[in-house]
Amino acid sequence: MNKMGAQNLTVIKPGGTIGILGGGQLGRMIAMAAARLGYKSHIYCPDRRSPAFQTAHQFTIAEYEDEESLEVFAKSVDVVTYEFENVPAQTADIVARHTLLRPGANALKVAQDRLVEKDFLNDSGVKTAPYAAFTTREELDVAIKTIGRPCVAKTRRFGYDGKGQMMIKARADIDNVLEVTAGAPAILEGFIKFDREISVIVARSESGDVAAFPVGENVHTDHILDTTKIPATLKPAIEAKAKVMATRIANALEYIGILTVEMFVVDATNEVIVNEIAPRVHNSGHWTIEGAVTSQFEQHVRAICGLPLGSPVAKGRVEMKNLLGEDILEYEKYLLDETAHFHHYGKLEPRKGRKMGHVTWVFENE
Amino acid sequence: MNKMGAQNLTVIKPGGTIGILGGGQLGRMIAMAAARLGYKSHIYCPDRRSPAFQTAHQFTIAEYEDEESLEVFAKSVDVVTYEFENVPAQTADIVARHTLLRPGANALKVAQDRLVEKDFLNDSGVKTAPYAAFTTREELDVAIKTIGRPCVAKTRRFGYDGKGQMMIKARADIDNVLEVTAGAPAILEGFIKFDREISVIVARSESGDVAAFPVGENVHTDHILDTTKIPATLKPAIEAKAKVMATRIANALEYIGILTVEMFVVDATNEVIVNEIAPRVHNSGHWTIEGAVTSQFEQHVRAICGLPLGSPVAKGRVEMKNLLGEDILEYEKYLLDETAHFHHYGKLEPRKGRKMGHVTWVFENE
Repeated sequence: MNKMGAQNLTVIKPGGTIGILGGGQLGRMIAMAAARLGYKSHIYCPDRRSPAFQTAHQFTIAEYEDEESLEVFAKSVDVVTYEFENVPAQTADIVARHTLLRPGANALKVAQDRLVEKDFLNDSGVKTAPYAAFTTREELDVAIKTIGRPCVAKTRRFGYDGKGQMMIKARADIDNVLEVTAGAPAILEGFIKFDREISVIVARSESGDVAAFPVGENVHTDHILDTTKIPATLKPAIEAKAKVMATRIANALEYIGILTVEMFVVDATNEVIVNEIAPRVHNSGHWTIEGAVTSQFEQHVRAICGLPLGSPVAKGRVEMKNLLGEDILEYEKYLLDETAHFHHYGKLEPRKGRKMGHVTWVFENE
Repeated sequence: MNKMGAQNLTVIKPGGTIGILGGGQLGRMIAMAAARLGYKSHIYCPDRRSPAFQTAHQFTIAEYEDEESLEVFAKSVDVVTYEFENVPAQTADIVARHTLLRPGANALKVAQDRLVEKDFLNDSGVKTAPYAAFTTREELDVAIKTIGRPCVAKTRRFGYDGKGQMMIKARADIDNVLEVTAGAPAILEGFIKFDREISVIVARSESGDVAAFPVGENVHTDHILDTTKIPATLKPAIEAKAKVMATRIANALEYIGILTVEMFVVDATNEVIVNEIAPRVHNSGHWTIEGAVTSQFEQHVRAICGLPLGSPVAKGRVEMKNLLGEDILEYEKYLLDETAHFHHYGKLEPRKGRKMGHVTWVFENE
């Protein structure tokens, strides 16, 4: 690791080592992109069957609360990044004491708590659904009155793939909500009748350069991402607006790396509303591996290592489909399809709903 | 590993483990392609700083003569392949006793000895330069009389990147040749005044399917590959002839995996002459990573695992350039070039002439 350039920016040259907190498929694909650029990866994950271990130079099997292991890990690498937003604040602090943490702890703090996130977004001038915090029945009652029904109650922390989210349509739903939140801090959000859900994935470098990938349109099934399509069905002005919003968020966070912003679009009113942010590479960006000039994984490595950002331009029309559970057993179908790029994450048990792989189709000449 | 299909072909499903003899950049890139399809890789190499260790699930540091380590290695994987042709016959035998070896030992036997190779090629009906074996001065004299000057003396074994090759123009060169061969079996070959050198890379599956990549045209500098360009400057009939020759060789060897055949082309006479074969993925095939629908590395994995072969079609005009020694320090130039795909092999010392990485340019819309 050394410093160079007029702004005294940090550059980690190819040959250096990237530490990754988390050993899932996102860490696995970051490690693969890092390797192409000559970086070694060191994965830190408590699960001894982590798929990312299969493609990394080194791994540490230890808990995120294990201070000693974290210190050894942090000291063995040139920069640490993460593949999931629920990295404990304490873990991030320990790492940051011994090496670079990119993106920084601030991005984690904002993304881990739906209330902090909503406050931050609105303070940054970015529109979200109306929201109110609640813990007690009384607070929830007030919140419902303010926001109206239908609305969605969510736990403030540790939500993903729709977990910890409950729709409130009738008063009868309230008991169920309070049973689930069980006195933990929660948030009530207005229900947005959106026409489409989009992902805006941007990379930001230490020097403040921002590169936005073309906006992807997502379809979820049972709250899990099913497909992402490029380009999204959007008016050019709306796509531009969405990119400006994501860029504003990245700048406000003084972000370094890939940032994903999920948004809802209401066609009739041209509204673009931020649903949530993920301070990491994202499932809805897998299409970039073959579909963009630079993949989100390579772009993330470039950003956190201080290399110039690559082009985010799409090579054509692209479609990405997740392979969940036993979908993965159909691999031969995809291997026989000359337009398909098949990815298998190396997980052995195809449990229902588990992300086992994905397929990307690139239609270059359309 | 299990058997399926009418022909009782061996299929190693994604999730299985591929053993790779050799830990250089070729093994590294095989491991990376294998990972995308869900395979784990186990690299076997005596050099503890092998670049392939950085991208593999597991590695064994041991000599190729270490029978015990080889046995443990072979038993831990579903199939073994290799990234260099000088795998000792004994090593191949030990591996093959405990697991599948693909390509087989026969391909190694043929490729390791220039005399055996030339005999095999001519027996298969494929044209080579005129040649004669020699060991003594008397045999060399007779060979020169038969073949004529200029001609090229080569050691029969362990040649690569021009090592062990000596041009004989005048009688005065003979002493030097005999000093170098020093009584070891050697071969004298007629010197071909070729217009271009090409690589024909084919994949062959256990079922006998063959897929040939578009022919690449190579430029060497100081006997080391400098660039490969796709398409080669060839008449269509000559390109077709070259592919037929490579396919014939693959069939004659009952080959499984990627086979590379280097050929010389004489434009005026339309002659296509085989120079040598390499029973492995090849530097002249690196362009396929971004430039072909399926890369040579993925194709090799598909072939040795019994998956259907992918499409070898090129995506456009492609150019690959090796980065030797300190060329690698110019990485920023390539990262800034939006048409360039930069590859760094993770080797730390940029020694002169050492293959440190490569760059591929794909011009899709030409």
